Amino acid sequence: MITKTLGELAEYVGGRVRGDANIKIHSAATLGRAGEGDISFLSNEKYEKQLLSTKASAVIVGKDTVTASAPLLVAEDPYYAFMQIMVLLHGHRKHKKVGISPKAVISDSAKVGAGCHIHEFATIADGAKVGDGCVIYPCAYIGENVQIGNDCILYPNAVIYEGCRIGNRVIINSNATIGEDGFGFASHNGVHHKIPQIGCVVIEDDVEIGAGCGIERGTLNDTIIGQGSKLGDLVAIGHGTKVGPHCLLVAQVGIAGSTTMGHHCVVGGQAGIVGHIIIGNNVAIGAQAGVINSVADGKVVLGAPAIDANQGKRAYGMIQYLPEMRQSIRDLQTQIERLLSGGGGEVQRPEEP
Amino acid sequence: MITKTLGELAEYVGGRVRGDANIKIHSAATLGRAGEGDISFLSNEKYEKQLLSTKASAVIVGKDTVTASAPLLVAEDPYYAFMQIMVLLHGHRKHKKVGISPKAVISDSAKVGAGCHIHEFATIADGAKVGDGCVIYPCAYIGENVQIGNDCILYPNAVIYEGCRIGNRVIINSNATIGEDGFGFASHNGVHHKIPQIGCVVIEDDVEIGAGCGIERGTLNDTIIGQGSKLGDLVAIGHGTKVGPHCLLVAQVGIAGSTTMGHHCVVGGQAGIVGHIIIGNNVAIGAQAGVINSVADGKVVLGAPAIDANQGKRAYGMIQYLPEMRQSIRDLQTQIERLLSGGGGEVQRPEEP
Amino acid sequence: MITKTLGELAEYVGGRVRGDANIKIHSAATLGRAGEGDISFLSNEKYEKQLLSTKASAVIVGKDTVTASAPLLVAEDPYYAFMQIMVLLHGHRKHKKVGISPKAVISDSAKVGAGCHIHEFATIADGAKVGDGCVIYPCAYIGENVQIGNDCILYPNAVIYEGCRIGNRVIINSNATIGEDGFGFASHNGVHHKIPQIGCVVIEDDVEIGAGCGIERGTLNDTIIGQGSKLGDLVAIGHGTKVGPHCLLVAQVGIAGSTTMGHHCVVGGQAGIVGHIIIGNNVAIGAQAGVINSVADGKVVLGAPAIDANQGKRAYGMIQYLPEMRQSIRDLQTQIERLLSGGGGEVQRPEEP
Repeated sequence: MITKTLGELAEYVGGRVRGDANIKIHSAATLGRAGEGDISFLSNEKYEKQLLSTKASAVIVGKDTVTASAPLLVAEDPYYAFMQIMVLLHGHRKHKKVGISPKAVISDSAKVGAGCHIHEFATIADGAKVGDGCVIYPCAYIGENVQIGNDCILYPNAVIYEGCRIGNRVIINSNATIGEDGFGFASHNGVHHKIPQIGCVVIEDDVEIGAGCGIERGTLNDTIIGQGSKLGDLVAIGHGTKVGPHCLLVAQVGIAGSTTMGHHCVVGGQAGIVGHIIIGNNVAIGAQAGVINSVADGKVVLGAPAIDANQGKRAYGMIQYLPEMRQSIRDLQTQIERLLSGGGGEVQRPEEP
Repeated sequence: MITKTLGELAEYVGGRVRGDANIKIHSAATLGRAGEGDISFLSNEKYEKQLLSTKASAVIVGKDTVTASAPLLVAEDPYYAFMQIMVLLHGHRKHKKVGISPKAVISDSAKVGAGCHIHEFATIADGAKVGDGCVIYPCAYIGENVQIGNDCILYPNAVIYEGCRIGNRVIINSNATIGEDGFGFASHNGVHHKIPQIGCVVIEDDVEIGAGCGIERGTLNDTIIGQGSKLGDLVAIGHGTKVGPHCLLVAQVGIAGSTTMGHHCVVGGQAGIVGHIIIGNNVAIGAQAGVINSVADGKVVLGAPAIDANQGKRAYGMIQYLPEMRQSIRDLQTQIERLLSGGGGEVQRPEEP
Repeated sequence: MITKTLGELAEYVGGRVRGDANIKIHSAATLGRAGEGDISFLSNEKYEKQLLSTKASAVIVGKDTVTASAPLLVAEDPYYAFMQIMVLLHGHRKHKKVGISPKAVISDSAKVGAGCHIHEFATIADGAKVGDGCVIYPCAYIGENVQIGNDCILYPNAVIYEGCRIGNRVIINSNATIGEDGFGFASHNGVHHKIPQIGCVVIEDDVEIGAGCGIERGTLNDTIIGQGSKLGDLVAIGHGTKVGPHCLLVAQVGIAGSTTMGHHCVVGGQAGIVGHIIIGNNVAIGAQAGVINSVADGKVVLGAPAIDANQGKRAYGMIQYLPEMRQSIRDLQTQIERLLSGGGGEVQRPEEP
C-alpha cells in the first residue's frame, strides 16, 4: 500500500491544497463511502452537498469555492487528477507472470516476443506474430498471420480471426471477437450468397475493446479502429468502417459497414449509425440515437432519427405532448368551423354566460 | 419418465381438477402441439380458443369459466403451477458428474468445494474459492481471488475477472463476462487515460446471467446484481451500478454506470438507462425505452425519452399522425389568415356554392 | 493467385464487356483503392462519379449507360456477379487441415464424421454427432447429444448447449451461444422461479450466425432459424421464436420469444420485435424499429413503434418540427381567442400599421 501526503499528491498532479497538506492518503473512495486515509472526488455537481458530510480525508475538486468538511486538492482538470492519483495509489491491473504455458498451443511458425505471458489453452496460430510484453489469457485465440504489437492484453476468450493487425498497448476484453466476416451477402433468386471478406481489421495503438464486442473484417477494405479509441461492451462495428483516433463508443453502440468516423467523437450507449456515411471530427452522438445521415465536424446530435441536439432535446421531449396537441388542433378546427359558419364560439367557452 | 395423474398434479400445485382426475400426464407441451399424456398451459388469452381444439390430456388454467376440450387443472397462479409441473415432470438440466478434470487448470492456491464438477479447459486462478456443488464447464475462467458460493453453474466460456464475488445458486451462461474494467477514462488534451477500476462485481444469490452479457466492475464502488435478479442475453451493466433484488432485465438491456435500481423492477428488451440516476422499487420499463431521469417507486414508463406509460402509449403511438397534424396546423393558419384579413373561408369550403 | 481476362469473367457471370475484354484481372478492390489488375464494383449510385477517376482495370456495373474511365463488365445482377468473381478470384476462407487434435476432448460416445478438423481445446460431449467435413475451432463447445450436419464451421469459442440440432453448411462465429435457457421465469410471491426449458434450438442448412449472438432454447417448442437465414453480430433470439428461411437479421437485432417470422424478411440493425406476434413473408423492418404488432406479408415498417415505412419516414422525420408545431398551435389559440372575443388579430400582425 502506497501512502502519500495530500501535499505530495497535489504536487504530483500540479494542483494545490486548501487545508492540511500533511494529511495522509492511501486510497480513493466515493464521497459517500470514503473514510480516513481516503481521497475522494467530486465527479458530478449534484453530489456537491456530500462535500459537507463526507468522511474522506481529502477531496479533489475543480474550484476552491466549494464548502467542504475535508481538505481539498484543487486541480485544473480534477477528473484527470483523480485518474493520476488512482494510478499512483492503486495502479493498473497486475498480471501474473506465467511465462509461456506449456498448455498453450503456439504454432511453430508463430513468433512470440520477449516478456510475454501466454496462459494455458490460448492458441497462437500459424504465422502469427505477438510483440513483446503481451499477456494472452486462457482460451484467447490468435488466428493465422495475425500481427500484435507490444504490451497488448487479450483477456480470456478474446478471439482474433486471421490476418488482423493489432497495434501496441491494445486491450481486448473477454469474449470480444475481432475480424469475423462482414455481413455481406449477394441475394439472388431468393438465396443469400456469402461474399468472401478479404479485408481485415486493423486496431491501432492504445485502443481498448470492451467485453463481447464484434468487429467485422472488411469486404475489400480494412475495418479500422483508430489510435486511442475506446469501445465499451457489446459494441458492433460493421465491415469496412473506419473509426478515427480518440473516439469513445459507449456500450452496445452499433455502426454499420463502410462508414467513416473522424477523431474525438463520442457515441452514447445503444446509438446506431447507418452504413456508407461520414461522421466528422469531434462529433457527439447521444445515447440511443439513430444516425442516418452524415454529420459535420463538431456537431452534437441525438434522437432517432438523429437531429441537432439543441433542437432534438426539445423536440423529442415534446412527444409526450402529442395527445394534447392533437386535441388542441381538433378544438381549433371546431372553433374555426364555427367561426366560418358564423356560429361564434360560445359552446367552447362555457365559463361565459 | 415420470407419470402422474392429473389429480396428483393438482394436489401438488394446490389446484383443483375439472374433469377426469385420473388421466395420466407425463410431459408438458403447447396447446397446439400437445398430444396424449401432455399437459398444456393457457399462457396468453389470445390462445384461449385453442382450448377447444387442443389434443392435450389436460390444460392448466387460471379460472374454470373457460370452455375446453380437455380436463382442466385450475390453479390460482397458473403460470406458477405450470412451472412447478415442469420441474416435477422434466426437471432442470442435469449436469454430468465429471468430477475434477485433469485437463482443467486449478491453481494450487485456489479452493474448490465438495461435489464440484470442473470440466476440461476451465481455469481457476490463484486464490479463487469455489463453493460446494458447483459445475464449471469447459473454457470457463475464474480469475484470481474470485469467490463463488455453493451450487453455482458457469457454462462454457463464461469469464469472471479477478476479485469478483458470486453468491449461491448463481447461473452464468456462456460467453458472459463478469468484472471487466468499467468504461472509465479521463480525457486530457485529447487523449483518453484509463482509470484503474478498483471496485469489483458482486452477484448475489440466485441470480442468472444470460449468454453474452457484460457486467463491468466498479471504479470505486462495486457493481451489484441483487439477489434473485435475472438478466437475459447480451445485457450490459455499467460500472458501479446496483441492480436491486428480484429484478428482470430482458435481453439487450443496457444500464450505464452509477445508477441504482430498486427491487422487483422489470426492464424490457433493448431498453437503456443512463448513469447516475435512481430507479425505484417495482418499476416497469418498456422495451427500447430510454430512461434519462430517475423513476419513482411503482412507476411504469416507456418510450425514448421514457415517460409515464399511460401517457406514453398514446403519445408515441401518435407520432404516426404528425404529418396530418402538421397539415391541419397549416390549414388552420390559412383559415385564420383569411378570417383575420376579412376574407372568410370560402376557398377552404369549395363544396359550398 | 488466379488471373482471368475480363472476357473470361464476363462469360463466367453471364455478363458482357464494354471495352477491352483482354485486360487481365487478378483481384477485387473498391473504386477508390483499385489499381492495375483489380476489378471494382459500383455498389451504390452515390459513388458513380468515382467511375471517372478509378484506377481499376475494370468495373462491374448494372447498366452500360454510365461513363467510366475503365472497361465495364455489365451484368444483370451486378452485386451477384461481384460475389461470383470474389469467390472465383479470392475464394472463401481456407481452413487448415488439422485433423483431430489430441488436445481436443471428444467423448467416446460422440461421433465425428469423415474429414473433420477438430482443433485443440474443443469439446464434443457425450452423444453428440458431428457430420463430415466440419471444422471445429479451439474452445468451441458442442454439448451432449447435439447434432451437427456436414461441412459446418464453428469458430473459436462458439458454444452449443445440449440437444440442439444444426443443419449442413452452417457457420457459427466466435463467442456465439446457441441453446442457452430461454428467459422463462414464473414470478410468485416476489420470487422468480426458473422454468425448465425443454425445447432446443434448430438451425437449418446454410445459416450463418454472427459473432456474439445468443439464441435461446424454447420452453416447450424449439427455437428455429430457417434455412439460409443469416444473422449479424450480437443478435438475440428469444425462446420458441421461429425465424423463417432466407431472412437477414442485421447486427444487434433482438426478437423476443414465441414470435414467428416468415421467409425472406430483412431486419435492420438494433431493431426489436416483441414476443407472440407473427411477421409475414418478405417483410422489411427498419433499423432500430420497435415492432409491437404482427406485420402482414410484404410490408415495410420502421420506427418505434413501427409503422408503415412510407408514413413512418415522414412521421418520424417530423418529430424535429414539434417545437414549432406546438408554438403554431399556441399562436392559433391566441388568435382564435381574439377572434372569439371580437378583438381581431392586430397584435399578431405587428407589421401592419
